Amino acid sequence: MKALHWNGKTLALESSYPTPSSILDPSFSSSTALVKVHLSGICSTDLQIFKGYMGFTGVPGHEFVGTVSEGPKDWLGKRVVGEINFACGRCDYCARDLGRHCPTRSVMGILNADGAYAEYVSVPLSNLHVVPDGVVDEDAVFTEPLAAAFEILTQVQVDHGHEVLVIGDGKLANLCAQVLARTGAKITALGKHEDKLKLIKPAGVRTLLLKDWQTRQFEMVVEASGSASGLELALAATRPRGTLVLKSTIAGAHQVSLAPVVINEINLIGSRCGPFSDALAALAKRQVSITPLIEKIFPLADGVDAVASASRPGARKILLRP
Amino acid sequence: MKALHWNGKTLALESSYPTPSSILDPSFSSSTALVKVHLSGICSTDLQIFKGYMGFTGVPGHEFVGTVSEGPKDWLGKRVVGEINFACGRCDYCARDLGRHCPTRSVMGILNADGAYAEYVSVPLSNLHVVPDGVVDEDAVFTEPLAAAFEILTQVQVDHGHEVLVIGDGKLANLCAQVLARTGAKITALGKHEDKLKLIKPAGVRTLLLKDWQTRQFEMVVEASGSASGLELALAATRPRGTLVLKSTIAGAHQVSLAPVVINEINLIGSRCGPFSDALAALAKRQVSITPLIEKIFPLADGVDAVASASRPGARKILLRP
Repeated sequence: MKALHWNGKTLALESSYPTPSSILDPSFSSSTALVKVHLSGICSTDLQIFKGYMGFTGVPGHEFVGTVSEGPKDWLGKRVVGEINFACGRCDYCARDLGRHCPTRSVMGILNADGAYAEYVSVPLSNLHVVPDGVVDEDAVFTEPLAAAFEILTQVQVDHGHEVLVIGDGKLANLCAQVLARTGAKITALGKHEDKLKLIKPAGVRTLLLKDWQTRQFEMVVEASGSASGLELALAATRPRGTLVLKSTIAGAHQVSLAPVVINEINLIGSRCGPFSDALAALAKRQVSITPLIEKIFPLADGVDAVASASRPGARKILLRP
Repeated sequence: MKALHWNGKTLALESSYPTPSSILDPSFSSSTALVKVHLSGICSTDLQIFKGYMGFTGVPGHEFVGTVSEGPKDWLGKRVVGEINFACGRCDYCARDLGRHCPTRSVMGILNADGAYAEYVSVPLSNLHVVPDGVVDEDAVFTEPLAAAFEILTQVQVDHGHEVLVIGDGKLANLCAQVLARTGAKITALGKHEDKLKLIKPAGVRTLLLKDWQTRQFEMVVEASGSASGLELALAATRPRGTLVLKSTIAGAHQVSLAPVVINEINLIGSRCGPFSDALAALAKRQVSITPLIEKIFPLADGVDAVASASRPGARKILLRP
């Protein structure tokens, strides 16, 4: 099959990458499905991987929608999206329905498992979710990052009327702002790009350009800019005893003073993958707006150009179609 | 009066520093008491101040016990300790009994208010707590750091049987371990100094030398070492979805990767000043052991030597007696 392969230094299209299947791969068990990829998405974590994050090598890509082409009969032909953490199913995290923290997990396209920048991807059945009929592929491919936005609501009680600052105007920040706005909280999105902030506004979100920012403090702050300077701003913008949600991983160490966390007794909460069911339900009910976030769909064969395009500052979502 | 004065560069004994009093100081109001200091303590925050923390100048010192020598009649002669945050009493933090986060507060010996390395210190009446008769001065002078240890229990639900790691073996780490051990949680204290770890053991705390540490993960970790390396260790030792309490401020920025916070969805909680009433009650009931923490009591006149002594690695608590 065609697949984009990252060898730790270079990303390249391989035209005869081995298709994961029951015939070719003895580890391909009855609890795994082969999914024919319709669309996959390039996200910031992927771009971090190309800078060395997680030391990953293999086929990247963890946002996808596709159709089950091989697997148990009742799954065949189903349109699906998939959770990215492949858990052991036996440890105490798995028992508590926290497979995404399973210590021996592999992670699709990120850690010890090939991802979806390919014609086919293999996914454990327990990770699959059927996409409701009314949800088009272009929306469904956002299920993973949208679920990550919903994760905030599983961790923090967001009260009606709370003042919340979302730092960032990229895809993840946009989805976080949209999800949070539905709680009735007063959301302000702070970003560098007027055109991208404009996409967040229709959700009832107040927007503010970074150049107009004057430090003030919020009950809750969500850092979704993925930059070290965003983190510093977030720390200053969280009021004493307030909550700061970190949504983005920043590769490598950076200079930061955590003194404000202690002095202001800030509750800093790391937040990663979230509930797919909530995301799919929101997409089915058209509670979030996805289309404006998409910039372009590249053919998989032009994947290297697609990644270059996704790396431009201010880029919107780039998708790949095999 | 005699007082130790920090001018931003040098600490020096001044023998005729103005005594804060109703006669000399027009801002000395009916809601303030003049306290004759019996003992004051030198803590890590003071040592940070001598490295530039908070840009403070004036008389340092925020741990003290003394007797009210000037003030309203019903306070005169009372033996007292005092909370260190001088709040406005009018803002919404003050209304929520969170005066220690009042944005216009001054802080005794730390921010815009002289402290207790002096014969007398002035303290708002609302900050004073009467010391129960059974509590000796040498214990009472630890009320402030002990209250800081109790603060953890106001922020985090510590369950019986929880595995908790306390990083550090200094005074604050010792008090945190003692307070946490009383919840029934299983406490491990990790430090560099065998002799200091020995002081924590009698509280039913398991102790471990840093050289014998092998990374494992705990439900809850308390960082009380005040070092950047302690923070890194703390991040690695907190299990996914676990809680990491930061008790110590580290002056200045340092290199740190917060990626583990996001990946493991860690709940990182800054923790500062705490409830004096809980600390005094614990001292009155002899629920914590203080005496072994004291190394030496210096006369105030030898304050510069006292600070040098407190700065030695591995020093126990140094007290000043005017």
